Amino acid sequence: MNPFFWPVRIYYEDTDAGGVVYHANYLNFFERARTEMLRHLGFEQDQLKEESEVLFVVRSLQIDYLKPAKFNDFLNIVTTITDCRKTWMMFEQTLIRHDEVLCQAHIRIACIDALKLKPKPIPPFILEKLT
Amino acid sequence: MNPFFWPVRIYYEDTDAGGVVYHANYLNFFERARTEMLRHLGFEQDQLKEESEVLFVVRSLQIDYLKPAKFNDFLNIVTTITDCRKTWMMFEQTLIRHDEVLCQAHIRIACIDALKLKPKPIPPFILEKLT
Amino acid sequence: MNPFFWPVRIYYEDTDAGGVVYHANYLNFFERARTEMLRHLGFEQDQLKEESEVLFVVRSLQIDYLKPAKFNDFLNIVTTITDCRKTWMMFEQTLIRHDEVLCQAHIRIACIDALKLKPKPIPPFILEKLT
Amino acid sequence: MNPFFWPVRIYYEDTDAGGVVYHANYLNFFERARTEMLRHLGFEQDQLKEESEVLFVVRSLQIDYLKPAKFNDFLNIVTTITDCRKTWMMFEQTLIRHDEVLCQAHIRIACIDALKLKPKPIPPFILEKLT
Repeated sequence: MNPFFWPVRIYYEDTDAGGVVYHANYLNFFERARTEMLRHLGFEQDQLKEESEVLFVVRSLQIDYLKPAKFNDFLNIVTTITDCRKTWMMFEQTLIRHDEVLCQAHIRIACIDALKLKPKPIPPFILEKLT
Repeated sequence: MNPFFWPVRIYYEDTDAGGVVYHANYLNFFERARTEMLRHLGFEQDQLKEESEVLFVVRSLQIDYLKPAKFNDFLNIVTTITDCRKTWMMFEQTLIRHDEVLCQAHIRIACIDALKLKPKPIPPFILEKLT
Repeated sequence: MNPFFWPVRIYYEDTDAGGVVYHANYLNFFERARTEMLRHLGFEQDQLKEESEVLFVVRSLQIDYLKPAKFNDFLNIVTTITDCRKTWMMFEQTLIRHDEVLCQAHIRIACIDALKLKPKPIPPFILEKLT
Repeated sequence: MNPFFWPVRIYYEDTDAGGVVYHANYLNFFERARTEMLRHLGFEQDQLKEESEVLFVVRSLQIDYLKPAKFNDFLNIVTTITDCRKTWMMFEQTLIRHDEVLCQAHIRIACIDALKLKPKPIPPFILEKLT
């Protein structure tokens, strides 16, 4: 599958007193990009919850902070699914400024039952689109 | 009723690139203090939701930012209920550093039905404690 | 001046356990819209800080929460400057879903010296564009 | 060195529409605990910045989300320094509810020059206390 690109603008809310983006907030940017990638593939998470009773949740992640993003930066998030199994997917996401990588993450997303909150197979109509 | 005091420490997450606390985050501090005041009076909001089917939500607020709070500040929140009616309460909350007022807010909290999300009378056993 | 429109998508980061947007986060949306309005008029806040040594900060605000915004909502922020004086401006901002007003705020923004953090006249080349 | 314990209460601001703590917010809790551990050892980060011209920043982290934290939970953060070198330290941090581990992270913190934002040796008077 092709990488998915999503832009992000840095606002005051994203920064901290160090003058750069607060480290936890990069996870918000990556979450937004995964949501938009799913939407781009035709999946709305609120509908998936209602109709297929599944939620996608972060199970683990590894992140490297290489260079800081700053207020007013206009950046790109590059999102790729690197692995997709029965109940989880692996995303690679990088935050870039022009051709500079600011931050890189590997994020494991689990598919869980929306009520029982237990692992559940990714619905076939989603799997099909992801692979 | 006596004012209720609750401390707050300022961490990096609370600040922005201006070097001071980001304006929206003061609302978090006030929310924490209202939660702790209710707890102090014997009310846990998750139990109120389960057992009495009520939620307390912010209906409107007015806030003045007088002096900025900074990273590492150790502050106090002073919370008073200034009015309490059938379906809402009025809080006055100030954030202070020693005897200096940094920020002052008047916040109207509505009692709503946890399912219908419509106004609902504050349960009598709560009203009794608040007035 | 014409109202300025800016879209906002609601992500998980914006919501709380009540299932709707957490009340403090509406202030982020309004801040983003003010930043984009200034950008639209040709002003970048990081340049204003560097070159004109001014910061725009929230001095006070009043906000009414009328209907909750929810996960996945795609909303519009309507921003108008209703008053503009020597050292401050008054914004009216509403968050709308189609023709429904979810939230409305009146926000006073002060112009301050970026170093002394004291009130400072709005630079004439900005005032000119704002009025 | 002994593990350092720091409590955390879960408020509305920490949760999302899934009804549990939003995944990025766990990083805030761990940051607070590292700040408090340094304070407990006698180091205030604002003084370190002013007087020793050093900042401690997150360079990379790995985090496992095992069980969700919920609104109103009262939890503990257990913080240990597992490695300490010339310009960085490795923290292991777990978030626990009674004897249940909710979340576990390994976080590499780099010491950088507060002005040049480049790696800088951890000041000897800090290293001494950390090892």
